[in-house]
Amino acid sequence: MATTLKLMLLILLSLYIFSLVSSHQHHPLDSLTPSEFALVRTIVKKIYPSSKFNITFQYIGLDEPDKPTIHSWLSNPKSKPPPRRTFVIARLDKQSHEIIVDLSTHAIVSDKVYHGHGYPLLTVDELVAAGELPQTYEPYIESIKKRGLNLSEVVCSTYTIGWFGELKSKRVLKLLCFYIDGTVNLYVRPVEGITLVVDLDEMKIVEYNDRLIVPVPKAEGTEYRESKQRPPFGPRLNGAALVQPDGPGFKIDGHTVSWANWKFHLGFDVRAGPIISLASIYDLEKKKYRQVLYRGFISELFVPYMDPTEEWYYKTFFDSGEYGFGQSAVSLKPLADCPANAVFLDAYYASSNGTPVKISNAFCIFENHAGNIMWRHTESGIPQEVITEVRPDVSLVVRMVATVGNYDYIIDWEFKPSGSIKLGIGLTGILEVKGVEYTHIDQIKENVYGTLLAENTIGVYHDHFLTYYLDLDVDGEDNSFVKNNLETIKVTNHSSPRKSYWTVVSETAKTESDARIQFGLKPAELVVVNPNKKTKVGNNFGYRLIPGSATRPLLSYNDYPQIRGAFTNNNVWVTPYNKSEKWAGGLFVDQSQGDDTLAVWSLRNRKIENKDIVLWHTIGFHHVPCQEDFPVMPTLSGGFELRPTNFFDRNPVLKTRPPNLVHWPNCTN
Amino acid sequence: MATTLKLMLLILLSLYIFSLVSSHQHHPLDSLTPSEFALVRTIVKKIYPSSKFNITFQYIGLDEPDKPTIHSWLSNPKSKPPPRRTFVIARLDKQSHEIIVDLSTHAIVSDKVYHGHGYPLLTVDELVAAGELPQTYEPYIESIKKRGLNLSEVVCSTYTIGWFGELKSKRVLKLLCFYIDGTVNLYVRPVEGITLVVDLDEMKIVEYNDRLIVPVPKAEGTEYRESKQRPPFGPRLNGAALVQPDGPGFKIDGHTVSWANWKFHLGFDVRAGPIISLASIYDLEKKKYRQVLYRGFISELFVPYMDPTEEWYYKTFFDSGEYGFGQSAVSLKPLADCPANAVFLDAYYASSNGTPVKISNAFCIFENHAGNIMWRHTESGIPQEVITEVRPDVSLVVRMVATVGNYDYIIDWEFKPSGSIKLGIGLTGILEVKGVEYTHIDQIKENVYGTLLAENTIGVYHDHFLTYYLDLDVDGEDNSFVKNNLETIKVTNHSSPRKSYWTVVSETAKTESDARIQFGLKPAELVVVNPNKKTKVGNNFGYRLIPGSATRPLLSYNDYPQIRGAFTNNNVWVTPYNKSEKWAGGLFVDQSQGDDTLAVWSLRNRKIENKDIVLWHTIGFHHVPCQEDFPVMPTLSGGFELRPTNFFDRNPVLKTRPPNLVHWPNCTN
Repeated sequence: MATTLKLMLLILLSLYIFSLVSSHQHHPLDSLTPSEFALVRTIVKKIYPSSKFNITFQYIGLDEPDKPTIHSWLSNPKSKPPPRRTFVIARLDKQSHEIIVDLSTHAIVSDKVYHGHGYPLLTVDELVAAGELPQTYEPYIESIKKRGLNLSEVVCSTYTIGWFGELKSKRVLKLLCFYIDGTVNLYVRPVEGITLVVDLDEMKIVEYNDRLIVPVPKAEGTEYRESKQRPPFGPRLNGAALVQPDGPGFKIDGHTVSWANWKFHLGFDVRAGPIISLASIYDLEKKKYRQVLYRGFISELFVPYMDPTEEWYYKTFFDSGEYGFGQSAVSLKPLADCPANAVFLDAYYASSNGTPVKISNAFCIFENHAGNIMWRHTESGIPQEVITEVRPDVSLVVRMVATVGNYDYIIDWEFKPSGSIKLGIGLTGILEVKGVEYTHIDQIKENVYGTLLAENTIGVYHDHFLTYYLDLDVDGEDNSFVKNNLETIKVTNHSSPRKSYWTVVSETAKTESDARIQFGLKPAELVVVNPNKKTKVGNNFGYRLIPGSATRPLLSYNDYPQIRGAFTNNNVWVTPYNKSEKWAGGLFVDQSQGDDTLAVWSLRNRKIENKDIVLWHTIGFHHVPCQEDFPVMPTLSGGFELRPTNFFDRNPVLKTRPPNLVHWPNCTN
Repeated sequence: MATTLKLMLLILLSLYIFSLVSSHQHHPLDSLTPSEFALVRTIVKKIYPSSKFNITFQYIGLDEPDKPTIHSWLSNPKSKPPPRRTFVIARLDKQSHEIIVDLSTHAIVSDKVYHGHGYPLLTVDELVAAGELPQTYEPYIESIKKRGLNLSEVVCSTYTIGWFGELKSKRVLKLLCFYIDGTVNLYVRPVEGITLVVDLDEMKIVEYNDRLIVPVPKAEGTEYRESKQRPPFGPRLNGAALVQPDGPGFKIDGHTVSWANWKFHLGFDVRAGPIISLASIYDLEKKKYRQVLYRGFISELFVPYMDPTEEWYYKTFFDSGEYGFGQSAVSLKPLADCPANAVFLDAYYASSNGTPVKISNAFCIFENHAGNIMWRHTESGIPQEVITEVRPDVSLVVRMVATVGNYDYIIDWEFKPSGSIKLGIGLTGILEVKGVEYTHIDQIKENVYGTLLAENTIGVYHDHFLTYYLDLDVDGEDNSFVKNNLETIKVTNHSSPRKSYWTVVSETAKTESDARIQFGLKPAELVVVNPNKKTKVGNNFGYRLIPGSATRPLLSYNDYPQIRGAFTNNNVWVTPYNKSEKWAGGLFVDQSQGDDTLAVWSLRNRKIENKDIVLWHTIGFHHVPCQEDFPVMPTLSGGFELRPTNFFDRNPVLKTRPPNLVHWPNCTN
């Protein structure tokens, strides 16, 4: 009787949730809503009831419809949207399940056990649970006492263990601990020498090591909260606010953003964070929106540290595939993380038990009036006349900040009316430091693998590599990747007083191997073109990649972390579109063995000419910490630009009029 | 009698001018004032009276006092400033004179005739005069008629001729002509085939060539004036203005700018444009200003085109040494070139007859509230607490725009409270195009050395190399240049599960040859350090160069233009400070033979360790024009960063409080 009642209630509940979901018109690329997460949970738990199974949801995301389905819906957006499906990775009986759930039929479409290497995304819940285990673990309590530290002031943080040639490993992570004791800057107070290993499936400590005692850095002056600072403050900055009498120039309809000549969809994924889809730009001459980017997101982040010693060697993190860049999103602080004219959007992901978790203000969107110049010219070559025409630049920024433990990543997508998309990345937050006995560099006679930042504090050398997935569809799906090589031509026949000049020798990549590019070796403009569509004078429509820096990995190619991070071996790769190839480091990255990376897929050397192709671009930072990065790091910025190149017949902002002048207003503040 | 009167008047006038000058307290690095220009003219003309000599002033600039003199004045700024001296290059009897004038004693300190290769800066006046010569030149009138063009609608523009191995050449330039005929975008309507050579000392046409007839591009849709545009306009942008209730945060005292923790002097030179001197930053812990940059400016710009044919091969411009980046400064347009909160400053230079010329609004200075994040962290590792601290970034921008003929260069110096100086460069304006018969790329069977941008219009391939002079004095004059090479260490002894890591191997450059760096060859952090001063934990104070791109020249090293532009062969050079080594391409750049370039000075391989050193940094752009660059080019941005590296003991903006919040004001516009 009780069971029947429960079952009935469950059915009613699921019907209720279903009615909530279906009553509201989705864009087929919309991220999952709270009620959809609940529905997924209900559907999966019907098969794997809590009474019998201990199931955890490691990943729940949209299983996006195929491209043709999307395009057909777009051609008639009032038609019934394609069925909503979700992709679930669940952990059950020490196995990883890949489950596809159809939300329209409430059916599990497929449920496969994954038998390959590696483990899924870690959930926030299990990271928290693992971090709390030491509090009752006797050997640890002993170690803390031995160091004379106050147990209740020590917190432990979770670290993925990487892979170093082991044939098989359990689903474990390591814990390292920090001494709070009045500070909030815990990362600068490592309790070195203690390492705990936690089995996540058992949720218990399975290994313990107390190898050495190092003084805990005093962390003097590392307080960063404004409320705790003492004078002298400084430097002082005057306040300012942007006044927009006509309001913001953008519109948000569901998750579709329209601004100036741009239109795009903003999605959120627990793993990737922001996903920009269907970015297209209005062409004033052709009188229509033209496709630029079908989908773009940060596919993986590889952050290897450069200290080979016992407590540090394994620190070779994949911040997206292991920690989830999306679930690391923080609530943006109005008037600080984003300017006064920003609009904020929330995001949702599923906790390990499948219930939705809200991140308030996960995104902000704002018009950027940074004082830049869109284009200008002063003409003084015409007699008796000086002509000056200037268009001030305005751009639209979509921002998310992901804080993965100590580090804060600022992710910006900036759209310009000229057709450029600038992808910005800012590194800030707190360095991962190592406690040492040294208080001055004169004492250091060994390699310490980093910079002495303060007494007893080494900022360990490391890299940040961010790999972007950029499915450009330049005015259509079938595109080619062209290397416009800049080659020196020597003039040897005295046909010119010049001895040399450079010219462009274009090379269309036929297969994947033609499109593996390491920057710095050969000057070239890299363009994704539509080989089937031309401007009036005959140039192929294109978008080119203007890279920021030319950083490449420095680990040996055969080193285990680099095998896993082999997708960073080139700055650029091009693959044919394949729905399953989304994550450059593989679907199961935690303890992966590098057999499912972009580098491996690319070995198939598939044809990429005049096909739906994906551009993968890695930007990197070698980080040699300096004292200014301590105790919180001033933002270090990088990024790259996607810029229209013969995509338009002419400058697309030639006929843009300057924004209405807003004079100094009389304001009563 | 008349002569005596004249002489007396002259003396009186010069006394009057002198009294004006001396009545006002100069900073010793202040640019020359209008009255100082007039005084220089008076003093020089006293020796070379107009009645007997035809003298033209090619360059008049401050002969800045030696560094020790400046430092001793700075230590007591109320003391008498050092005597004002000017450096003059004059053209007289077909010779170049280098004259030093002492404004305090009204004396000519030295007057030397220059016998080396090359000619001085061209003056605006002679460029204008040369451009007007064809109007009365019969063969030219004939050629224009032959083409069926309206003579009064053709204007001719001046082009330096470069050097191609000639042993000796007169001071000449070439003219190319453009058909206005209703347009203001004259550069897109070249009248190809006609080249005139003007002797500048004679100011007459000395060679004429009408080699071929090519259709003048119709230049349809190349009008860029807002007033002439017809609907549809677009994309539309909403207006905005920055409200600063507390006013701007910077102060300008004479030419010294103070803002937040920065203080610097802004000078103007007819050749270099903006010169930043004595940039120093206040250290909250040391309670004093500390030196960073003694002097910084763009030393030279090299712009070679890549078309070896008769009418184009010689186009290998040095925009600073030939055309004068300072005298090419345009009057900035408020609310367009600079935001509403900008403050504008005028600049002055001397015309060819020595009289002062004013450029209104040559500089703007504004606080940049671009919505960036100075630093942030969200801490969720502390139980029962989430801490978010964010400091929004504000920076101070000094901007000048130089329009050299068709091209507009936006030059930004951006100072950040964190200690970074960002040097930004924006390329916009109009491309140099070539008229051709082609209307579609399918017709092109030969190398056209560029991109077909529109009917009959080729955008010719070219480069822009900007070489910055950066006399960093990192907390004192004696500095060293350190390459922190990032080197892979292979672990072969199984001491770690890792097979590799990278570490920093520091190398202090002993002599100039150690400091010639081409980017992209070897990963390294490049730091100018003060080897005599250390942080508390023992790191040398430093500032590092974070480059933008890694562009290098593609011309053969033995090609004439590249011999002249050999200072671009490396991305970085370091020289010992030498007052005479200011101009990377030499003092006399027009038709120079490359014997007075940075590359030549550096061959002396002088000692640079623990000395007053100058860092030279070249950033480059290979420009493959695309249709979007036509008819006016959307700004392409680049730049680099000078960032404190162990200069401070810790993050210098840790104790910076966020600016006062300015809420949406109630404004009556």
